[in-house]
Amino acid sequence: MRLPTLFRAGATQAAIKPSGKPDLALLISGNPCNWAFVGTLNRAAAPCVSRSRRIYASGGQLQAVVVNAGNANCATGELGVQADSKMAQLAATQLGVPENAVLTGSTGVIGQPLPVEKLEAGLPKIGLVSHIDPFLEAIMTTDLAPKKAEATLSNGSRIVGVCKGSGMIQPNMATMLAYIVSDAEVSQDELRQGWKGVIDRSFNQVSVDTDTSTNDMAVLMTNGASGAPDLSEFWRAVEQVCVSLARQLARDGEGATKLLTVRVCGAASDEEARRAALSVASSPLWKSAVYGNDPNWGRIMMAVGKSGVEMLEARTRIALQSMALFEGRVMPFDREAASVAMKTEEVLVEIELGIGQGQGIAWGCDLTEGYVQINALYTT
Amino acid sequence: MRLPTLFRAGATQAAIKPSGKPDLALLISGNPCNWAFVGTLNRAAAPCVSRSRRIYASGGQLQAVVVNAGNANCATGELGVQADSKMAQLAATQLGVPENAVLTGSTGVIGQPLPVEKLEAGLPKIGLVSHIDPFLEAIMTTDLAPKKAEATLSNGSRIVGVCKGSGMIQPNMATMLAYIVSDAEVSQDELRQGWKGVIDRSFNQVSVDTDTSTNDMAVLMTNGASGAPDLSEFWRAVEQVCVSLARQLARDGEGATKLLTVRVCGAASDEEARRAALSVASSPLWKSAVYGNDPNWGRIMMAVGKSGVEMLEARTRIALQSMALFEGRVMPFDREAASVAMKTEEVLVEIELGIGQGQGIAWGCDLTEGYVQINALYTT
Repeated sequence: MRLPTLFRAGATQAAIKPSGKPDLALLISGNPCNWAFVGTLNRAAAPCVSRSRRIYASGGQLQAVVVNAGNANCATGELGVQADSKMAQLAATQLGVPENAVLTGSTGVIGQPLPVEKLEAGLPKIGLVSHIDPFLEAIMTTDLAPKKAEATLSNGSRIVGVCKGSGMIQPNMATMLAYIVSDAEVSQDELRQGWKGVIDRSFNQVSVDTDTSTNDMAVLMTNGASGAPDLSEFWRAVEQVCVSLARQLARDGEGATKLLTVRVCGAASDEEARRAALSVASSPLWKSAVYGNDPNWGRIMMAVGKSGVEMLEARTRIALQSMALFEGRVMPFDREAASVAMKTEEVLVEIELGIGQGQGIAWGCDLTEGYVQINALYTT
Repeated sequence: MRLPTLFRAGATQAAIKPSGKPDLALLISGNPCNWAFVGTLNRAAAPCVSRSRRIYASGGQLQAVVVNAGNANCATGELGVQADSKMAQLAATQLGVPENAVLTGSTGVIGQPLPVEKLEAGLPKIGLVSHIDPFLEAIMTTDLAPKKAEATLSNGSRIVGVCKGSGMIQPNMATMLAYIVSDAEVSQDELRQGWKGVIDRSFNQVSVDTDTSTNDMAVLMTNGASGAPDLSEFWRAVEQVCVSLARQLARDGEGATKLLTVRVCGAASDEEARRAALSVASSPLWKSAVYGNDPNWGRIMMAVGKSGVEMLEARTRIALQSMALFEGRVMPFDREAASVAMKTEEVLVEIELGIGQGQGIAWGCDLTEGYVQINALYTT
């Protein structure tokens, strides 16, 4: 996928992944970018997340991203902090940009210090090209599919987004990294005001297994090379790219055979709608039923109820694959037909709460024996 | 297990469970009891939970409990509310006690109205005995083991507790019902003040799959027949009974092969310690690792971190089966020996946060293909 104007990216094999696959990647803009950032809320956050927060708070511009896969550099103490800082320094020197204009990211095994010597040997080998694919390939761990999306605005500005996640490598957890870059001209203030809302309606609405990574981050960078866009068009497109990536993340969840999409409307607020949707999309019991093609709507009701949002049984309506199952009371429905309708790549649950105007969507996947096997049987 | 003085219990087959097993049960005290109650926080709570809350709030005494299994009578509208009320009325008439002194409980399938005619036919068939076992057998759904515990105080008062849970029947979710009865003489105020704390340290610290039932309740009843106990001894014994039941619940979690016990100390508060412990005990990634005998402590660190409690990597210590894995930094440990040490009926994780004096314990189980199969493949 072609990068927006002035962006370049590349990757190499630095022998951090045991598989020998590409594992060290650079992304750079020809000029400094305005940017927006969110990082994991996990209190055991990795040094790259803490460092990113620090340089983000300083308010300066960003010009490059350096990411490694195969090692999360988390829970690695002072050594890990130093390795992360060294990673930024090496990339900055090589690219000729200030150290604080370089964002670091790591994903992979927890608890092993990042091997600085491999970074030193690997970084100079990276050739930069005008498409994102080598970068994306290098940041993947056990993702089965590369996740990318793009949009073009009416002024010609482009938005390209990539992310990795829902895979795992021994002995680590699923991690999510997302990079969205654009040549649109958007102020730092505007970016920072808008980004959290997009995240709340895209990445924050994905659940594979309710476990929050120590290394998650999502970054939005604009270099202005293609001029100022219509701002509402820009944000619509950014959100569209992020929602596409979020769906790809959920569909590629560990062991997943299906994408699960949950739409809630009629909630007391958008926040309550999103909370209810995410509760259904992440319920192990409902996810197991999705896997088994079981139209067990009682579990949907349970999951909405446990989210704590305002609801009344008599006003609640539940549809599964567009079949009405509950409309204030149990509807007569053909169980066999509903089960057959669930045998698809995407299962859609629609819930109307009848309380207010709040709307929200969440994405998840089915829970399968594969999830357990990936995370239990094939690791030690 | 023999009931405390003046308590009697019994059960019958009322054909509510399709299996034809006992499914309708009564528990009664010869005199009115002081009592304490907690019910599910699920907003889609069943009529029995709402009714219990209402009569609890009225402040009166309780004398009997009537419970059915095989039908949760949840999401069943006005018909369900009427059936629940009828159930109390029938039991009250038969036992000769006021209707508001009878607590109802239901567990099983969601979304089907409770068949009142089966209650009418079944209740008169129940013979009352002085032990709890027929009652316990009748409230079980797919529990593999009956869960019971008892304690005797120095004044001769006895405490007997039973619960069901972590099983499921098609098409329903795990549900937890717990009944603790004693012949100790304890005031209603004292019971109500103490019960929530016991729950917070026992049943609220169990997780099988993070899905909260619509029908959960836990009830403590004392009839005073054996006189006043030492109150601190009474509460210690009640808590011991509840913790025993909580452990039994976790061990019998759907598909579980192991009990997972997580102890946290050195937290900022007891509440934070319990929250961190429960986060580890319910993490799908750590639970999968427990199943696979994988001493993957990075997942423990992740799960503590995602709980949001105050922590510092440099002060955190993690031990697994008494082997130190992390003490502010990665410890050298024998992976193979740690894996072998995990091949037992109970896996113990100990976490020291080094922040304050807060302590807490949680109980869970491993996540296995069996969980997925029970909830996906064997239902439709």
